[in-house]
Amino acid sequence: MHPIIEGRWSPRAFAADVVAPEVLRVLLEAARWAPSHGNTQPARFLVGYRGDDTFGRIFATLRPGNQGWAGAAAVLLVGMVVTADERGSLPNTEYGLGLAVENLALQAVDLGLAAHQMGGFDREAVRAAFAVPEDVRPVVVIAVGRAGDPASLPEDLREREQRPRRRRPLSETVFTGVYGRSAFSAESADEPDHE
Amino acid sequence: MHPIIEGRWSPRAFAADVVAPEVLRVLLEAARWAPSHGNTQPARFLVGYRGDDTFGRIFATLRPGNQGWAGAAAVLLVGMVVTADERGSLPNTEYGLGLAVENLALQAVDLGLAAHQMGGFDREAVRAAFAVPEDVRPVVVIAVGRAGDPASLPEDLREREQRPRRRRPLSETVFTGVYGRSAFSAESADEPDHE
Repeated sequence: MHPIIEGRWSPRAFAADVVAPEVLRVLLEAARWAPSHGNTQPARFLVGYRGDDTFGRIFATLRPGNQGWAGAAAVLLVGMVVTADERGSLPNTEYGLGLAVENLALQAVDLGLAAHQMGGFDREAVRAAFAVPEDVRPVVVIAVGRAGDPASLPEDLREREQRPRRRRPLSETVFTGVYGRSAFSAESADEPDHE
Repeated sequence: MHPIIEGRWSPRAFAADVVAPEVLRVLLEAARWAPSHGNTQPARFLVGYRGDDTFGRIFATLRPGNQGWAGAAAVLLVGMVVTADERGSLPNTEYGLGLAVENLALQAVDLGLAAHQMGGFDREAVRAAFAVPEDVRPVVVIAVGRAGDPASLPEDLREREQRPRRRRPLSETVFTGVYGRSAFSAESADEPDHE
């Protein structure tokens, strides 16, 4: 596997470093060049830097479990999708946002950073806080920064931070001929270290 | 931008080369290690190799426009999502499939291959042809192979194949403070060559 794919993980401990706008721009350029259905480019982002007003208002929408660590990130992003245009509703918009955010997450790894995606936030609170239009849907909050020392985390999170990453074997997820008939054996490549 | 991100594009012309199962396995391992909501891992795949029965049955579900070129690919995959488990419906499943397929597409670039994703296919025909369960939804068909000579394409597709790639500037997609207020100027990094 390519090292930026194998090396990607989702830390909760972040270092104090800031992420400069010109660095964040590279991550967002990577997202920009992702493919999308008929090049409809459904992905939109809100960006806050630790200490600014947008960061604080994104943080306020997070579930308490995420507020326990995400405030230490250098940047908080909200990933959103445009669900319709003048021709009507757009297909595969959340799928397209996923394609874009994975580019962003891998570009972060290449620059020595990490991105931790969160579904646990209040979508309607984001909509209200940032005047998100009706045809745009907040989907994910993304914490970005340099991975930090797990010792900086509360005990319970520290343990999770160092837990090995686990995935289903390909034998349970990749099929041929009929759904459920394995195309590959369970044997798999070397596995990354982190959740 | 990292070269495997900048170098990714979606060709319609494919070379005659086959893609060996051990190579396809690396692409699917890359997809396997993508993040997902609570590590729910919603992505599932069907795999067909050019000339086999599964490839033919996936090809038969494609819209005519895609049938005009996709039969030359070495591999056709169907990307699907598991929408529910024993605890109920799963969140962000199509988003999670997007994260996984972008890993697959970038791993393909790293191995000198290309992946072209298609939304234009008959989902119910895939469900019927492969006995896809009710709680699993086909989302995308992915053609994989080595990019070929555009001269091998019909005239109309040949022109599209060589058209420059275009994306909205970040000034229209990345906001701060309030939805619609640009976080970045329109100036952008060097742009890749292909659609």
